[in-house]
Amino acid sequence: MNEFCRIFNIKHPIIQAGMVWVSGAKLAAACANEGIIGTIGAGSMKPDLLEQHIKKAKKLTNPKYHHLLAVNFPLLYGQIEEQLKIALNNNIKIFITSAGSPKKFTKFLKDNNRLVLHVCSSVKEAKKCEEAGVDAIIAEGFEAGGHNGRNETTTLVLIPQVVDNVKIPVIAAGGIACSRQIRAAHALGASGVQIGSRFVMTTESSAHQNFKTAVSDALPGDTKLLMKKYVPVRLLRNQFSEVIKEMEAKGAKKEELVEYLAKGRAKKGMLEGDLINGELEIGQVSGMIKEIQSASNIIKELKKAYLS
Amino acid sequence: MNEFCRIFNIKHPIIQAGMVWVSGAKLAAACANEGIIGTIGAGSMKPDLLEQHIKKAKKLTNPKYHHLLAVNFPLLYGQIEEQLKIALNNNIKIFITSAGSPKKFTKFLKDNNRLVLHVCSSVKEAKKCEEAGVDAIIAEGFEAGGHNGRNETTTLVLIPQVVDNVKIPVIAAGGIACSRQIRAAHALGASGVQIGSRFVMTTESSAHQNFKTAVSDALPGDTKLLMKKYVPVRLLRNQFSEVIKEMEAKGAKKEELVEYLAKGRAKKGMLEGDLINGELEIGQVSGMIKEIQSASNIIKELKKAYLS
Repeated sequence: MNEFCRIFNIKHPIIQAGMVWVSGAKLAAACANEGIIGTIGAGSMKPDLLEQHIKKAKKLTNPKYHHLLAVNFPLLYGQIEEQLKIALNNNIKIFITSAGSPKKFTKFLKDNNRLVLHVCSSVKEAKKCEEAGVDAIIAEGFEAGGHNGRNETTTLVLIPQVVDNVKIPVIAAGGIACSRQIRAAHALGASGVQIGSRFVMTTESSAHQNFKTAVSDALPGDTKLLMKKYVPVRLLRNQFSEVIKEMEAKGAKKEELVEYLAKGRAKKGMLEGDLINGELEIGQVSGMIKEIQSASNIIKELKKAYLS
Repeated sequence: MNEFCRIFNIKHPIIQAGMVWVSGAKLAAACANEGIIGTIGAGSMKPDLLEQHIKKAKKLTNPKYHHLLAVNFPLLYGQIEEQLKIALNNNIKIFITSAGSPKKFTKFLKDNNRLVLHVCSSVKEAKKCEEAGVDAIIAEGFEAGGHNGRNETTTLVLIPQVVDNVKIPVIAAGGIACSRQIRAAHALGASGVQIGSRFVMTTESSAHQNFKTAVSDALPGDTKLLMKKYVPVRLLRNQFSEVIKEMEAKGAKKEELVEYLAKGRAKKGMLEGDLINGELEIGQVSGMIKEIQSASNIIKELKKAYLS
């Protein structure tokens, strides 16, 4: 029972990551019901839809675990203040912010008696999170799916340095999908882990079946961190990612990337299952995830990391 | 005491990595004398010079540890067969091959009753190593210094997959510089670790003082894997690496990179201390190595990973 476990009132310090188009009410509730933090990804939700998901998640979750329901807010999207208000009004206790400054909302959320985590990918950002007053830091390595840091520091290299430079608990993210990787994260000094890709591959995730099949077919080396000139993001190899890769190899400018990316690519790929033109965000660890399972079965397996 | 320890007759399964221009007789002997595998990097040595280093290393090493002296042979350089013969004739017991096919020399070396390791960076290559008959595999992640794999798989993601796909012992390399990282590697299923960058920063390494100072000044994010179109290599940021980076961002072809790289850049940087025009190969973990110490002091610290 470490400090993170005490602050968050949790036995197994595992966070199911908030993921656009993938983690709605069903997944978050299934995870919270197993005693880990279950996160709704607000990045792909308009305020109304977010409210529906929060209410549904509450309904699906055993009240004794309501304190484990979280919402992730990527600060780069619009309507963020409305989203935060909805989560506050619906008594969400855990707020995870990412892709923006931790100074923006941490004080406001702490004043409202909430638990706040912020996602970072460097020692410098981690120190800013601590100064801003967050309760814990999620330090995310290069191997993580979705949006990512620019300096490419891997989880193995990042975690000990972050741990040595802040006093608050550090949650390791990126490259974690099995109990061996959880043990490794704790050996590095982490107080817990955040897991994304493994939970894409659940019966409860909103990922399209085509996307899940593509992940289970993925081989090691089939993801790549792309669009570093714009907003870096780790993508599964498909026609869309190959075009981006080729554009970058030829020295494409930010504007050209933005234009090709256009809108709706992530929804098209992950939610609607367009494996050709859609954007498929997933972690490097996808190369070792072959099965679609219930969140409950996965969590039972992951908890074995904590048996001594 | 795992299988690797039994085969190699070693108590603490740590390999000091062979590194061009950095790991000669003095460093290898200092490491072997502390009971870990001390490796001469043959990649930057003509056959004559290699013989001098081997003879000197033997003289400097306590005879009870002569079996822990190794030579690393990057198969991409010339005169490899002569080098191998010299190491055989001088009774080197451990042969580490890299940057080429494990099939090329493993049978020959096993017929000569030697222990063989081959460096790989993917599950596919690891299987080939096992088929070729090596005694153990060094699986090297994206964060490692020097030459590197193309698929960017990090140590945290690579090791469990390699371990699950071969029966022989797996040594983890890339991103390992402290005892927490050693523990993490073993949690992932590795039977030992190979450490490079930390040993650059020893009094016994041949790295130029300017290079050591540059490493101790390095911040997280100051290394980058470059030249993926040619032979990928992780470099410390300097004028040379910035030019390469810019050329790549503009879509430079392989031939242009080769021309700019020219010859002698690595020697110039690492051995002669030209921090402007020289190539400085170092791992991502350099961001957390601040001190120059004796190899002996470092190894005493690292061995703490094995205290239960």
